[in-house]
Amino acid sequence: MIIEIISIGNELVFGRIVDSNAAYLSRRFSEEGLNVSFHTVVGDEPEHIKNVFRLATERADLIVATGGLGPTKDDLTRHVIADLFKLDLVFDEGVWKGIRSRFAKRSIVMPENNRVQAMMPCGAVVIPNNTGTASGFLINIDNKKIITLPGVPSEMKLMVDEWVVPHINSNINSLCPDKDAIEFSVIKELKTFGIAESLLGEKIAHVMGPDKNPIVGTQASINGIIVRLCSSASSKGAAQELIGGVEREVKLALGDSVFGSDDESLEGALYNLLKAKSMTIALAESCTGGLVSNLLTNISGISEYLIEGVVTYSNESKINVLGVLEDIIVEHGAVSNDVAAAMASGVRKHAGTDIGIGITGIAGPSGGTVDKPVGLVYIAVDIQGDVVVKRNLFSGSRTNIKKRAAYTALNMARLRLLE
Amino acid sequence: MIIEIISIGNELVFGRIVDSNAAYLSRRFSEEGLNVSFHTVVGDEPEHIKNVFRLATERADLIVATGGLGPTKDDLTRHVIADLFKLDLVFDEGVWKGIRSRFAKRSIVMPENNRVQAMMPCGAVVIPNNTGTASGFLINIDNKKIITLPGVPSEMKLMVDEWVVPHINSNINSLCPDKDAIEFSVIKELKTFGIAESLLGEKIAHVMGPDKNPIVGTQASINGIIVRLCSSASSKGAAQELIGGVEREVKLALGDSVFGSDDESLEGALYNLLKAKSMTIALAESCTGGLVSNLLTNISGISEYLIEGVVTYSNESKINVLGVLEDIIVEHGAVSNDVAAAMASGVRKHAGTDIGIGITGIAGPSGGTVDKPVGLVYIAVDIQGDVVVKRNLFSGSRTNIKKRAAYTALNMARLRLLE
Repeated sequence: MIIEIISIGNELVFGRIVDSNAAYLSRRFSEEGLNVSFHTVVGDEPEHIKNVFRLATERADLIVATGGLGPTKDDLTRHVIADLFKLDLVFDEGVWKGIRSRFAKRSIVMPENNRVQAMMPCGAVVIPNNTGTASGFLINIDNKKIITLPGVPSEMKLMVDEWVVPHINSNINSLCPDKDAIEFSVIKELKTFGIAESLLGEKIAHVMGPDKNPIVGTQASINGIIVRLCSSASSKGAAQELIGGVEREVKLALGDSVFGSDDESLEGALYNLLKAKSMTIALAESCTGGLVSNLLTNISGISEYLIEGVVTYSNESKINVLGVLEDIIVEHGAVSNDVAAAMASGVRKHAGTDIGIGITGIAGPSGGTVDKPVGLVYIAVDIQGDVVVKRNLFSGSRTNIKKRAAYTALNMARLRLLE
Repeated sequence: MIIEIISIGNELVFGRIVDSNAAYLSRRFSEEGLNVSFHTVVGDEPEHIKNVFRLATERADLIVATGGLGPTKDDLTRHVIADLFKLDLVFDEGVWKGIRSRFAKRSIVMPENNRVQAMMPCGAVVIPNNTGTASGFLINIDNKKIITLPGVPSEMKLMVDEWVVPHINSNINSLCPDKDAIEFSVIKELKTFGIAESLLGEKIAHVMGPDKNPIVGTQASINGIIVRLCSSASSKGAAQELIGGVEREVKLALGDSVFGSDDESLEGALYNLLKAKSMTIALAESCTGGLVSNLLTNISGISEYLIEGVVTYSNESKINVLGVLEDIIVEHGAVSNDVAAAMASGVRKHAGTDIGIGITGIAGPSGGTVDKPVGLVYIAVDIQGDVVVKRNLFSGSRTNIKKRAAYTALNMARLRLLE
């Protein structure tokens, strides 16, 4: 079965944003054992969109398109498909009711424009959108399936999980008559922090190589290095089994550097430890500006453990809110080992928590000196009065330095709770 | 002139990485006044690659392909092109010498594999790669140009700047024999917040439509709706002028909803107002968990205006840090109009700033009730004692609700400073 993904939007073809939807869909389908063969990106030009759908129906069996289902005049997917395959657009009462109730719930007057989102090609199966006004649809053309979805990633992903994947799986026989040709692949990512990519590569060199199954690759990012295992076999179970053995070897080689797998995050790993140990935490952030707090509060349930966060940009607030002694700031400077420690202890006492984190540094691009350059960040972790401070020198842009500092702080707390 | 970008590699079509090369090339070409019409992504399967090049030569005048020029067996671009267009692959001494000297310089024994990288389709013009072993090439097929480049982004980008862009610019006449057909385009993005896409669409309907110049499109994202203007004309100056008039019309129609253009952000717009008015700000965040603070501190220079941020997840810290009266929390609940107002005023007084923002709500996914559902967020802005509170009901995931609440708070403060 040949699968093609089509992404529609000027923002894509003009390079304003990267086409992450196509990558997501490819990956999601590969989890079901289905490999995608083509991605096509096209702008909001009706003749070009038509050209792309015409060619896709010539070379692919399943076509999944995203984008162009919004309420404005440049949203043309439904019109182009209706035109190309000579289908009338018909008004769908059910879809219309859903759109109206979305607006009613939010007490917003619905603009007349949204009416077009209830127009569906004759014979189409509606794909419900439970988080937005753009429903998708499926049509069958010459034994080929065309599925259209909205381009907003969060809406599209939910619709793929709730409707598209179950639909494809239950229609796999008609989509793919020679079922033996299906090769299933399983991908597993192990996530690490605090180890250099080259050292990591050395430690797991024995499981890497182009002829191995699973293929093991690494990918560096600002929140750590990902070790990606990808196995293929004639069944999903067999592919999963191949992963298992190598996963154990990688974990053994990398030890505590591995903080989780797949969708797990560093903040999630710290949350799990706080929960397991029933320990509370408070944060005093200067140069990270609330980023550590923001990351931790992405986790549902954190409110039981994260008691307080303060962003103390000024010396005054370090003194007033955290009780950092003015003498320490005068003697060592606001960016110093001692101030980081005093911030961690100050916020821990103020909030009455088990753990306090204090971060002070220079995120740049201005504000650096020879002694204290941009990227210098002191991070302190106080656990029940036992304070450890680490001096770091990060590089990159202001937001990169903030991110590196925030993840390093989360990782320091994580490693200390593992001791 | 129709331009198509082709990206070749299994890692792309399987969704392991997003196709950032195509976005980069599109953006780079648009800087030269050239709009890309299609992107195609294909894996390392020779028949599929052939299909993609065949179709591209049917619909495009200039084709730029990246990937598949490496030394290994799955690098097939040169072979497929030679085969498809019936060109012999010939050994290029100059390219070979370059490859050998790269290895010699690094004192590495050159694998025999690399010899294939010196094979070029007969008649091809070599595109030198000064930072890697994969040279690119250009061939002319039926008045169409096909350019191939390596997939490694850093090598590709350098070759585009050093060779491809100068070549296209100096051959624009032969690429476009009908010279009057050369169209330069200019793109401008106007960024809005706080207006529904459908209402926005109604307000600017008079400048939208497929036959307009500039083409006006909209794109919804979590931090607002972007209105994208793309004009084409026979010179860059003329294209810029076309933008100007419509830009004024869009701004007139949308008023204060427009907060900036191109790379400007909502937090940047608020920062500019704080700076212009020499006003200081403090933040009291509950459900946004430090996100507003994190966004504002991404801006270099904010430390003069952002004095303090507090994340008060618990009632205790709302009472202790912000001086919110316990009675108010008991009477109205922590997620209420009154508590938001008390937080905004409390943090403003505590930090001694002109402005205080208070945010309290339920980010979910748990914690909602019938009266106070997930997504309910009260946002208060206190400007020198004058407090305005807004009740919001956001939908989506926990992180989406946090983001919507944070951007809404930034926008509320921005609009009040515009009054």
